[in-house]
Amino acid sequence: MLEQMHKGLIRLRHNKAFELFVIAVIIVSALEIGAKTFPLSPTGVLITQYMDVFITMFFLIEITIRFIAEERKKDFFKSAWNVFDTLVVVISLIPIDESEMALLARLIRIFRVLRMISIVPELRVLINSLLIALPRLGYVVLLMFIIFYIYGAIGSFLFNEINPVLWGNIAISMLTLFRVMTFEDWTDIQYETMEVYPMSWIFYITFIFFTAFAFLNMVIGIVVGVMEEEHTKEREKGQPSLADIQQQIAQLSLQLQTLQESKSEVNPAPAGNKKGT
Amino acid sequence: MLEQMHKGLIRLRHNKAFELFVIAVIIVSALEIGAKTFPLSPTGVLITQYMDVFITMFFLIEITIRFIAEERKKDFFKSAWNVFDTLVVVISLIPIDESEMALLARLIRIFRVLRMISIVPELRVLINSLLIALPRLGYVVLLMFIIFYIYGAIGSFLFNEINPVLWGNIAISMLTLFRVMTFEDWTDIQYETMEVYPMSWIFYITFIFFTAFAFLNMVIGIVVGVMEEEHTKEREKGQPSLADIQQQIAQLSLQLQTLQESKSEVNPAPAGNKKGT
Amino acid sequence: MLEQMHKGLIRLRHNKAFELFVIAVIIVSALEIGAKTFPLSPTGVLITQYMDVFITMFFLIEITIRFIAEERKKDFFKSAWNVFDTLVVVISLIPIDESEMALLARLIRIFRVLRMISIVPELRVLINSLLIALPRLGYVVLLMFIIFYIYGAIGSFLFNEINPVLWGNIAISMLTLFRVMTFEDWTDIQYETMEVYPMSWIFYITFIFFTAFAFLNMVIGIVVGVMEEEHTKEREKGQPSLADIQQQIAQLSLQLQTLQESKSEVNPAPAGNKKGT
Amino acid sequence: MLEQMHKGLIRLRHNKAFELFVIAVIIVSALEIGAKTFPLSPTGVLITQYMDVFITMFFLIEITIRFIAEERKKDFFKSAWNVFDTLVVVISLIPIDESEMALLARLIRIFRVLRMISIVPELRVLINSLLIALPRLGYVVLLMFIIFYIYGAIGSFLFNEINPVLWGNIAISMLTLFRVMTFEDWTDIQYETMEVYPMSWIFYITFIFFTAFAFLNMVIGIVVGVMEEEHTKEREKGQPSLADIQQQIAQLSLQLQTLQESKSEVNPAPAGNKKGT
Repeated sequence: MLEQMHKGLIRLRHNKAFELFVIAVIIVSALEIGAKTFPLSPTGVLITQYMDVFITMFFLIEITIRFIAEERKKDFFKSAWNVFDTLVVVISLIPIDESEMALLARLIRIFRVLRMISIVPELRVLINSLLIALPRLGYVVLLMFIIFYIYGAIGSFLFNEINPVLWGNIAISMLTLFRVMTFEDWTDIQYETMEVYPMSWIFYITFIFFTAFAFLNMVIGIVVGVMEEEHTKEREKGQPSLADIQQQIAQLSLQLQTLQESKSEVNPAPAGNKKGT
Repeated sequence: MLEQMHKGLIRLRHNKAFELFVIAVIIVSALEIGAKTFPLSPTGVLITQYMDVFITMFFLIEITIRFIAEERKKDFFKSAWNVFDTLVVVISLIPIDESEMALLARLIRIFRVLRMISIVPELRVLINSLLIALPRLGYVVLLMFIIFYIYGAIGSFLFNEINPVLWGNIAISMLTLFRVMTFEDWTDIQYETMEVYPMSWIFYITFIFFTAFAFLNMVIGIVVGVMEEEHTKEREKGQPSLADIQQQIAQLSLQLQTLQESKSEVNPAPAGNKKGT
Repeated sequence: MLEQMHKGLIRLRHNKAFELFVIAVIIVSALEIGAKTFPLSPTGVLITQYMDVFITMFFLIEITIRFIAEERKKDFFKSAWNVFDTLVVVISLIPIDESEMALLARLIRIFRVLRMISIVPELRVLINSLLIALPRLGYVVLLMFIIFYIYGAIGSFLFNEINPVLWGNIAISMLTLFRVMTFEDWTDIQYETMEVYPMSWIFYITFIFFTAFAFLNMVIGIVVGVMEEEHTKEREKGQPSLADIQQQIAQLSLQLQTLQESKSEVNPAPAGNKKGT
Repeated sequence: MLEQMHKGLIRLRHNKAFELFVIAVIIVSALEIGAKTFPLSPTGVLITQYMDVFITMFFLIEITIRFIAEERKKDFFKSAWNVFDTLVVVISLIPIDESEMALLARLIRIFRVLRMISIVPELRVLINSLLIALPRLGYVVLLMFIIFYIYGAIGSFLFNEINPVLWGNIAISMLTLFRVMTFEDWTDIQYETMEVYPMSWIFYITFIFFTAFAFLNMVIGIVVGVMEEEHTKEREKGQPSLADIQQQIAQLSLQLQTLQESKSEVNPAPAGNKKGT
């Protein structure tokens, strides 16, 4: 009988309707989180509390079903998404009462919305493409970090006494430089330092150029990468490469040669005819 | 006689001059709407009122002609543009007198300018390309919405008491986050929350990174889509694919083989010659 | 003797050193214009006045040489660049004395710097590529204008009484919308109107989406156009298209068939052998 | 014995562990520079001073090893990276005591972080790709400079008396225009000048359009350049071009023709058969 239940769970897990119901519960939990940010009537508060318990229970049951339905228990935690799902569910089970901690509990529940990504395969693909792109862009990110670090250090040494709020130490300076990169009121910062160092506009303009170049490099790197992927996909679909075709023609030429040779052996042609071969 | 009139209307509808006249009336109605935003002399007001009546009448007649000229009446409303045109014309027929409603009447008349899009085929193509691109981008938009929703909920829980105008509830928070995404005075918002939570810059910078990535994904998706369309168009123009050419060469090879076989049957070549085949 | 002079002018015109000298004079005239924006000593003012006369004279002589060296006088004014050069030189010849007009005279002299573009061929190519791209983008620009016009009219009707400085009439509204498109303090404008119409954020966010889409369309249009140009260039360089190669193979197949037919006529093969053809 | 030491140094220089140690020292020197921007305890100051001496010494030794390990001493300074490394090390050796100069000494030490780029080959490739792209973009940069210069001169002549802080001379004007290009509070500048010249919005909007076009041109230039590089790389990998394949097929056709001719000589076919060739 246990085996029958096991099979039933496996069937349930791959059931389309069950999956849609899980998505529905995730959406409801998202709406509930949203509703809590509005001032609620006592009845409303009560409803969200009951819903909270229901959602927590449902997610616990769902993850248990998924775990039981997994054939090899070890493989279950090899998927990062499963680990993430389990963590979100387990942490939200811990009873938290104090007011300070209540905020934390609320924040953890927000991460339940991320389960949307772990359930819908198309979204998982999008996130995976981000994770795949990251290492390829590693050196560009490193270059950008070096640019930020050097300009942060220079800014901190030169402008520290002008405005310690913006240039107090290298960490604050790098945050200020991120602001400059987004063009957010960067001229206010520039005019302030230009009063002491009139040539400090060079600092800002070279920084903007260097980061813009690094950013452009990153975008182009992603675009070229995507294009290459598309090419590879096409090739995998059975589209031959030009080199394949070249080889095929070479083989044809060999066939022709054999034909010619076999013929010249049978009826020996005059010597003058061979020059064309 | 009725039939003759019907044929005349059909001819009129496909007449180039008639089409240009319709475009001219739409431009006049656009100019009239623009003129109304300036203070007008009593004469000017009178002129615009007469023009209003004329334009409404003209559009009513034009849509009637188009409807009569349509061979199958049912197909007329299958085109979304026809439905849109009819709605704009019918609604502007409703007599509205009160001052509050006058504003509404004015707004409806503005939509007449959109008829420009339904009349000029090239503009219709542009809008259609937008509508076609939308579902393809659906999952990226969904991902972006999830990012906004989660950050909106976190922002609302954490920063609600710091500045309820910006973080009052999840809807306001999401509007504030849209503002952060456009880099509009985002540092003011950041510095305000950093006074209470000094580490809250992580919130803003991760948000900017995630939305920038999702946005980049969207742009690349559109570019790759457009490129593919171009490829497909080229192929439809008669440009063969590499696979077509490969097949053709394979057929050539078969032809050669047949030739060789037919020959070896007639004059049986020595065994040593066959190795090359 | 006149003919000899004519030939000498033609030789001078195509002389590389002469061209470089013209570029040098343009750079000097640019520097002179820049110098005039700084407060100058009386000697400096005198020097610039003498330089002004020299540059004006030199440009007049240069354009005369170019005109005389032109073989067909009519063709001279067919080039838009020649017309532009002549206009700039002729206008700067008009003697202007009054203080108000002096400003105008200065402005006209600035356009001399644009002669840099008409002299350096690589810059002319860049400008031509802009002019070539414009009509292709015509419909996108028209769509963008319609979006601006409709939103401008709506903004003007709804928000006129809230802030006439920003929404006074349709022209001012469109300027304000351009500001919103560049994200420049757009939330200040938004918050102001949201006090009266709390839902007016829809107005701004839909506007940003539509213009961003139209802008994206424009960029993609340019990129695809440039790519196509590159393809065409490659083809013109002698790179055959796949269709060319397909045709070539078809011809090969025909050759083979002729060979086979000619053979079957000489030594009629058994019927069973023909199935492969 | 000296020769043995020389060989040992060469081996050391190409040692992977040694390279990693150099990178580690560079990171430590970067961290030390970062640490100095925070207020330090007297012990901390002492530690950084000792570290400074150690890093300076280490870099001196490392560059000496690299120099000795170089087979041809002249080639050493042919690499711009080696020159840069030597300069950074030599300058940081100069003893500087005064307070004013201490700032300079600090700034020079920051450039040590740039040695990261000269050590990691992947970063060197990124910087090289920037340097390679620059001349290709030369004319676009020149065009952009001309646009800035002309608008700077116009702005300086027209708006000088309105706000000399922003439009005082052509240099300040160009800085202001760079600000307008980044959309940073550009409407404040615009509204200020529109009070005197109501049509001055034309100045700003045309400027934004021209610079946006030039910038777009630059981006497209880079993208097309990168694409071409990818194509060239593929070709170098052994992928044949379509022209290569066309030539191969032409050769096949020649082979066939020879075959046919040799045959027609042996068994002269009837005249009617030759039409297909």
